Amino acid sequence: MPKNADLILYNALVLTMDEEMHQYEPGAVAVQGNSIVAVGPESEVRGEYTAAQELDCGGKTLMPGLINAHTHVPMTLLRGLADDLRLDVWLQGYMWPVEREFVSPDFVRLGTLLACAELIRSGVTCFADMYFFEEAVAAATVEAGLRALCGQTVLKFPAPDAPAFEDSLAAARDFIQRWKGHALITPSIAPHAPYTCTPEILRSAAQLAAEFDVPLQTHIAETALEVENMRRENGMPVVPYVKKQGLFDAKVLAAHCVHIDEGEMRTLLHAGAGVAHNPSSNLKLASGFAPVQKMLDVGLNVGIGTDGPASNNDLDMFEEVRLAAFVAKAVSNNPTALPAPQALSLATRLGAQAMHLGHLTGSLEPGKRADLILIDLNPLHNAPRFRREADNPYAQIVYASKASDVTDVMVDGKWVMRAQRLLTLDEDELLAAAQEYAHRIDIFLMEREQSVLSKLIALGGSMEEESFEVQVKVKIDDPLRVQQALQSPGIEIIRQRHYHQHDVYFGFDDPSQGWLRYREDETIDAKGNIAGVRARLTLIGPAREGQFGHDVLLSRSRYLAPAANSLRFYREYFKPSIEVPIDKDRLRWLVRYKETEFFINLDSLDRPPLGNYLEIKSRTWSRRDAEHKASLVAELITRLGGSLDETVTQDYIDLASNA
Amino acid sequence: MPKNADLILYNALVLTMDEEMHQYEPGAVAVQGNSIVAVGPESEVRGEYTAAQELDCGGKTLMPGLINAHTHVPMTLLRGLADDLRLDVWLQGYMWPVEREFVSPDFVRLGTLLACAELIRSGVTCFADMYFFEEAVAAATVEAGLRALCGQTVLKFPAPDAPAFEDSLAAARDFIQRWKGHALITPSIAPHAPYTCTPEILRSAAQLAAEFDVPLQTHIAETALEVENMRRENGMPVVPYVKKQGLFDAKVLAAHCVHIDEGEMRTLLHAGAGVAHNPSSNLKLASGFAPVQKMLDVGLNVGIGTDGPASNNDLDMFEEVRLAAFVAKAVSNNPTALPAPQALSLATRLGAQAMHLGHLTGSLEPGKRADLILIDLNPLHNAPRFRREADNPYAQIVYASKASDVTDVMVDGKWVMRAQRLLTLDEDELLAAAQEYAHRIDIFLMEREQSVLSKLIALGGSMEEESFEVQVKVKIDDPLRVQQALQSPGIEIIRQRHYHQHDVYFGFDDPSQGWLRYREDETIDAKGNIAGVRARLTLIGPAREGQFGHDVLLSRSRYLAPAANSLRFYREYFKPSIEVPIDKDRLRWLVRYKETEFFINLDSLDRPPLGNYLEIKSRTWSRRDAEHKASLVAELITRLGGSLDETVTQDYIDLASNA
Repeated sequence: MPKNADLILYNALVLTMDEEMHQYEPGAVAVQGNSIVAVGPESEVRGEYTAAQELDCGGKTLMPGLINAHTHVPMTLLRGLADDLRLDVWLQGYMWPVEREFVSPDFVRLGTLLACAELIRSGVTCFADMYFFEEAVAAATVEAGLRALCGQTVLKFPAPDAPAFEDSLAAARDFIQRWKGHALITPSIAPHAPYTCTPEILRSAAQLAAEFDVPLQTHIAETALEVENMRRENGMPVVPYVKKQGLFDAKVLAAHCVHIDEGEMRTLLHAGAGVAHNPSSNLKLASGFAPVQKMLDVGLNVGIGTDGPASNNDLDMFEEVRLAAFVAKAVSNNPTALPAPQALSLATRLGAQAMHLGHLTGSLEPGKRADLILIDLNPLHNAPRFRREADNPYAQIVYASKASDVTDVMVDGKWVMRAQRLLTLDEDELLAAAQEYAHRIDIFLMEREQSVLSKLIALGGSMEEESFEVQVKVKIDDPLRVQQALQSPGIEIIRQRHYHQHDVYFGFDDPSQGWLRYREDETIDAKGNIAGVRARLTLIGPAREGQFGHDVLLSRSRYLAPAANSLRFYREYFKPSIEVPIDKDRLRWLVRYKETEFFINLDSLDRPPLGNYLEIKSRTWSRRDAEHKASLVAELITRLGGSLDETVTQDYIDLASNA
Repeated sequence: MPKNADLILYNALVLTMDEEMHQYEPGAVAVQGNSIVAVGPESEVRGEYTAAQELDCGGKTLMPGLINAHTHVPMTLLRGLADDLRLDVWLQGYMWPVEREFVSPDFVRLGTLLACAELIRSGVTCFADMYFFEEAVAAATVEAGLRALCGQTVLKFPAPDAPAFEDSLAAARDFIQRWKGHALITPSIAPHAPYTCTPEILRSAAQLAAEFDVPLQTHIAETALEVENMRRENGMPVVPYVKKQGLFDAKVLAAHCVHIDEGEMRTLLHAGAGVAHNPSSNLKLASGFAPVQKMLDVGLNVGIGTDGPASNNDLDMFEEVRLAAFVAKAVSNNPTALPAPQALSLATRLGAQAMHLGHLTGSLEPGKRADLILIDLNPLHNAPRFRREADNPYAQIVYASKASDVTDVMVDGKWVMRAQRLLTLDEDELLAAAQEYAHRIDIFLMEREQSVLSKLIALGGSMEEESFEVQVKVKIDDPLRVQQALQSPGIEIIRQRHYHQHDVYFGFDDPSQGWLRYREDETIDAKGNIAGVRARLTLIGPAREGQFGHDVLLSRSRYLAPAANSLRFYREYFKPSIEVPIDKDRLRWLVRYKETEFFINLDSLDRPPLGNYLEIKSRTWSRRDAEHKASLVAELITRLGGSLDETVTQDYIDLASNA
């Protein structure tokens, strides 16, 4: 006697994506509650089961929903915000400042709903997310009816949802406790990356994940620079480092793994870790080519992810799986690498296993949840259809199917899309709300872009520090005489330094922006060797605050130190209209003269070759103090052999740009 | 007073894609006849022109139609036929045999119409094609209403549309004469590639193109192997070689250029040649990464092509332009390489210039033909929209738009798609007809795949040659004694050879298929050095035709010589279920004994180590002759010291596979 099921889907080409890649045509799938109870040839399934509801699939392809193994779904709201930039400029110049300003539970909810709509339309039934306010991601995902692994992010820096990492850890614990056991959501913790976490964070996160037996998500070896820094700072590559911190006490899902070697792959394998490969993001950000074929050969569970829609710029797993297959071939110089059936396995069964959700989803097998999709394999752009080989349908899906060929999507036994109509979400409403956010972000960035100072502040991390100085500068012919005169009585030398200073001045079309100076100071030791290097950024305002007798100036500058990024970074971020390099040799003394401290600089300008200058400076805090110091400066100039008739009121940058 | 136009398109974000990348929002375009007469801000265009028809574009993006700079449109009918194969297996094993069997004017017409439907749906208004029966491609393209550069292919081999290249050249002349000056079609000639054409073909094709002042299309430096062979055979890379053949007397469009150096780029530049970059095809076939950014830096006109849909597997220029941008970044390790505006220029203005059609199409400028499209930039997968920077819309199109976002397409002033409805083609009819072809091709290949012999014949080029032989083989202990005995009177040695023979036998699940032997013969000279190598394929039938006294056998074998491809090729093509390698040293004599010629082989089997064998063979043509020779063979065996009690009736492969 036939058994009862809730629903039978029949008259389909069923691609089970199970380990043996069974396929049935015509095939059928029986669903009871939220689970699959039978998969097989249509006649067998319909012989074994009857169901109140029977759906004729009209010859379409029925397969497990796609698995997006790594993304940051709320970042749909930042899609197309900034492109064609280097990772550091993109992150520090755009993503982080905007996230600091805008990311909230409301932002996260809307971004997640928008993402879910796109994911459903492109046949994704399950995704792995890492973001802030992950509680809101989980709630919105349930609203949309999708399955997800949701990772609460932990960072060593302040985050939009936590002033310190202890707060993030506590929030993660709370989040995991509340959501563990949910039908659709698997909570997890996501220490962002080894370079953005302390060893303590990595250890604590792993312990938390192990305590609750939930997966841990992180970014591993995304760029060559990350690996280089890790080797320099810790003497080992990234995987051994995180192993040392106990990360593999947890079930890990490691995103990217672009720059790992075979030994690291084996470590991941023995740790039972999964890998999420993100081909679009890796190409677009020029991170490199992940060794996917080798990881698969080693036996790793590799899934495919879109990464966040701000670096892709979409959530389309059809494009992603195609690109994974393309890139694997091109990089290995072997067109038989990552063939279509295997590529599609990555986007389904292996992806679910990489996420540690292989028992629930990723293939059409009795006992797994009913997460499935219907695809039309015969639209115009995928016609005609060859049937000679069992691999033909996989090749059709991987090499020519589009997201728009997905017609129906079921998650956990419930339809979320039928005949390309979304059942759980209102697209127009989401689009309108998203556009409002985009408008506000546009205004925020446009205001910021109007001022170099605002852009500098937007970078965050750097400290603004104003100072007022009296200063005088005279051209001199004989530097040795100045050095001798410094030895005379009444001048006490507190300390002496020797620098090579390499400056690059950024100028802008609007001269009221002033000059932004990037300075590399090489400290020179007594033997003439370079003892150290530090880089600073200084925004030099155009205005003089005042002037005293003998061209002693009162000037103001804003120091934004240190310059943590490279000159290249600042160039791409600030987009100066001109750049002026100035190199000089500087002897610098801190002296006490008449109970007042002065800095004395003896500069020899090499590029451009402007000659020798003596500069005397002293910090000040009031006009009265400034007047007093101005007169002392004039005395000192004379004592050191400089002539007050030779004073120069211009900065070196003005001298250089007029030269 | 306002001037008259036929149509004004307004309320659009107009991306002109002209050299200065002008954009207008709200912008408008005025069309008169088949040409654009005005482009600019809406208020200006509508102030200057009135038109009977005014179309509100509803805020959509209006831009020039995309240019597919390299494809083989009729190959839509071979889409998904064979994937994940090496180029040679794919071409020689599948594409060429199927093309030889099926390509006809009817095939070409249907494939072109199917392609045009897909091209229109993905916003392409103009493409460069190279195929056979190009007349039929041109006619079908006109039927669909698209613009194309149509190249009649010329090859040194017989082609589906010409028994010899002289016929192709004559057909090309005829085709060019008839179509030159057509509003939509620019005829051209397409010598397939330097390695598939003789120098004479390249010269004649260039002269023909120059005579009629039409472009010439060809494939240049697609694979590293091509360049390697060219260097070995002609002592120079590909571009200098084709230059030497006078190719640049014509206006050249060079597809691929994956493996060219900067000197070759400059040669192309000075020759006024255009380049068609095909990222999907280059990745999928693992051809390599074309140096696109460098070509652009040198100043070349680079377009983007999909290549044929059998190696892509679609004609989607949105995916292609995105991939071009991605790959350029990844390969140069620079995410700022080929930014979105430049990538989109390749797919429009620069593509048209590369095709030598820049005066007609590729940008929205007064005087150019009205080839334009409307795109919806605000679907779910491309929301929200940022407007802060002029580059935002290009990034939206390049990084997130899909073919399905194109709503309207106009070519030469005529709509071919409105609101996603095709106006010139019946999709259902095309799909049904295409499916019929696929069915016939499936049957053809399935029949072929049933027999190793048919697969061998399907490769073409190799000659089938049956032979009957009498033969006997005996195991011997003392090879030197055989050599001495050969010097005895009555045996005349006609010639002697020494070989190392490296055989690989392919076996199949069905033993009635026999063994397919791949043999490399190394000829050894008197000094023991390798004097030459040749490779042959032999299909060894399982059946013995007869047997005589003393185990003298009558056997039949089919020689399919020479083996022009590598062992790897045959392995991937024939997919044997087992492989058995046999290496031996062979001394071979042709002798005359009692007025009859015999081959005498003295074999020493090294792998597997089976010992020494004496083989005597003679070709035969009748049972009577065979009986006579059988008795002579028995005599000879005894004279040479072999024992007729030691005869072996098995082939080496049987001995080896039983060993």
